[in-house]
Amino acid sequence: MKRVRVGIAGFGTVGQATAEIILRHADLIERRSGVRLDVTAVCRRSGVPADRIPAGAKVTSDWKQLVQSGDVDVVVETMGGTGDALELLRSALTQGKPVVTANKNLLAEHGDELFALAAAKNLPIGFEASVAGGIPILRVIHESTAGDQLRAVHGILNGTANYILTEMESRAIEFDEALAEAQKAGYAEADPSFDIDGLDARDKLCILARMSFGGRLSVSRIPTYGIRQIRAIDIHSANRLDSTIRLVGSAEQTDGGLEVSVRPWMVERRSMLAKVEGVNNAVFLVGDNIGTQMFYGRGAGGGATGTAVVSDLVEIARDLAAGQVNAKRVSGFADAGELKICDTPRPASWYLRLTVKDQRGIVARVAEVIAQEDINIESLEQEPHMPKDRLSFVITVQPVSEPTIKRAIDVINAFDFMVEPVLLLRME
Amino acid sequence: MKRVRVGIAGFGTVGQATAEIILRHADLIERRSGVRLDVTAVCRRSGVPADRIPAGAKVTSDWKQLVQSGDVDVVVETMGGTGDALELLRSALTQGKPVVTANKNLLAEHGDELFALAAAKNLPIGFEASVAGGIPILRVIHESTAGDQLRAVHGILNGTANYILTEMESRAIEFDEALAEAQKAGYAEADPSFDIDGLDARDKLCILARMSFGGRLSVSRIPTYGIRQIRAIDIHSANRLDSTIRLVGSAEQTDGGLEVSVRPWMVERRSMLAKVEGVNNAVFLVGDNIGTQMFYGRGAGGGATGTAVVSDLVEIARDLAAGQVNAKRVSGFADAGELKICDTPRPASWYLRLTVKDQRGIVARVAEVIAQEDINIESLEQEPHMPKDRLSFVITVQPVSEPTIKRAIDVINAFDFMVEPVLLLRME
Repeated sequence: MKRVRVGIAGFGTVGQATAEIILRHADLIERRSGVRLDVTAVCRRSGVPADRIPAGAKVTSDWKQLVQSGDVDVVVETMGGTGDALELLRSALTQGKPVVTANKNLLAEHGDELFALAAAKNLPIGFEASVAGGIPILRVIHESTAGDQLRAVHGILNGTANYILTEMESRAIEFDEALAEAQKAGYAEADPSFDIDGLDARDKLCILARMSFGGRLSVSRIPTYGIRQIRAIDIHSANRLDSTIRLVGSAEQTDGGLEVSVRPWMVERRSMLAKVEGVNNAVFLVGDNIGTQMFYGRGAGGGATGTAVVSDLVEIARDLAAGQVNAKRVSGFADAGELKICDTPRPASWYLRLTVKDQRGIVARVAEVIAQEDINIESLEQEPHMPKDRLSFVITVQPVSEPTIKRAIDVINAFDFMVEPVLLLRME
Repeated sequence: MKRVRVGIAGFGTVGQATAEIILRHADLIERRSGVRLDVTAVCRRSGVPADRIPAGAKVTSDWKQLVQSGDVDVVVETMGGTGDALELLRSALTQGKPVVTANKNLLAEHGDELFALAAAKNLPIGFEASVAGGIPILRVIHESTAGDQLRAVHGILNGTANYILTEMESRAIEFDEALAEAQKAGYAEADPSFDIDGLDARDKLCILARMSFGGRLSVSRIPTYGIRQIRAIDIHSANRLDSTIRLVGSAEQTDGGLEVSVRPWMVERRSMLAKVEGVNNAVFLVGDNIGTQMFYGRGAGGGATGTAVVSDLVEIARDLAAGQVNAKRVSGFADAGELKICDTPRPASWYLRLTVKDQRGIVARVAEVIAQEDINIESLEQEPHMPKDRLSFVITVQPVSEPTIKRAIDVINAFDFMVEPVLLLRME
């Protein structure tokens, strides 16, 4: 089979970009891989605009028709969600068809079942597009570090949150304004919580950690904090410390187990993390032999994500053409054991921002709470000329473990002068 | 075949690291890939120290014995050079054995013949380790951008040169001192010309450009300049311009053809290129759909390079185990057409440093030559307090094409007050 017929279920931004790339680069792909890709069917519940239908492709609003079609050899799932998408992958695999998906949510939650089914059917699931858009990080982990023991994986995994943070910094605007602009620019959804509360980054980190460390990890076990609480004053304080703020998903193997979280970090301006601006993503891998590697690029958007989908399609098509389609052994899913979470995380430096109603003795009372937990204050700054009913001050502390700093914060949050809960950032 | 037997020819730093990784991570590799790697033979002309011999491996000083051995399924070539190494690859492929090589020099010069032979024998050549050490850039180009039209590839491809440049900057030392230290630290050879004259970077760029743009390119067609001429004053001048200096290999497809070169660039301090320090490498890819991607990591050293060798071995071993070993179609080699080199390169800004014997009227005469070529001077600076017989001054010019600036430089170099030829850096 030198011609491989592709059905695309979910024909939004990524689905349309995938079809467009296949059409535009069909010759290039054939020259490089020896296989011709052909989009023979597309499916979208809400219908497909006539000018978007790939030449010669059938259109349906029912994904079941697409999966069953005798004209479809490989199914691309770009519908999103975990309802129909889960049914579709089950159905396609059961019918003996390889699938390619961009759905991180689906794999983070149902990856075990789906990879087990794929193994039973000896069929591959392509999922490069599910993490970090066009950055081929999953292929790197799967293939390129096959002979190394990875120790850490971390990175900027959500372009929307990174766009908001870099806009807040470069234009000195407040969070709400930056969010509104991200929505206007099409980088954030009307309901932005999936991006700005860290849930999207959490799903991606879950997949990265499973593959890097070869064990199961439920998303519910990943402590996740977003960027809703970040204010202009935090960016300003970061600047004063020659730093900036990034939302970072991080998983690290320590002697005590896996330290894993999604949270805002305060990172030095000269660091590579700080250089990642706008909607870009970056993933760092640390391994015994490879040392530190970094992979940077567009984390979302049709072109980048579509290219990742097509890279999986080409790999599967090559194997179909050679009559050698096999399941891929994906580390960390299906029959893998549970990853042990570390319950004694290592000390880190922390940034605390308090927002208070002005009254006498606040600094003394806060400092006392911190001292009682044996925490050393590294710096303390109160900005001048602030409204008396909403005064901010900022404390950085020397390395302590997260449970310790959180005990202090729980006490501080209960004080009657607190206007809102303490903002806590990890410092790198 | 679930156990794949590896013979390593050339048992220096990379060969030993490869064996060590296979021994240490044999269980990990087997768990991930389902295949057990076993080093069954090693070969080194000068003999192998007893404590370095992998348990159970045969030792020989004749690579022909290793290739012919009935105990070797895959041959790793880490001898270097283009003499015996070329013979070895020919011989292994002819005898039906897949090979893995870390030899950029060999592939840049004899890749066409070797990939044609591999295709004829339907055998793979693994060569990830040949470019940028542990950074899996070749696999990325081959697999991950299969559906994209790449437009440019550039990067810092030689760790030794980058180490020297960053040492010169961070410690404000002269080139000779930094080179001596690189040699002492084991980062530079006794004869350092391959690294500091850009020849190593040129071989790597040649492979990257061929694969990225799908055509043949002889190394002799890549204009190559090294860093021997860079002085402390250039680093100092770069600092003044908020920039730094990096040796960059660059290939870009333009309407007029391929613009390709290895040369020192002056890059802004805030750029990602400037962030690459010490012996690290970084490769940037630019494509229609992926936009700009960057891949960063250790460019050399046994651990990183050995991991790249092992990643190829695992891929080949998986295929051997499945009875599905095939040649890989490698874009840009064997039967590919020639890449067209652009003969009208686009304008760029340039940095010129002149070293002169002090006499009256020098600036006027130099400025006149530049004006005659219709080149606009952007800045001109003469440092105070310099020796009269070795005065440096620095000129930056607005964008002009390379032939234009070179015509001016040819005239300037002929002046009797010039102590040494003009140093020319491209500015980004």
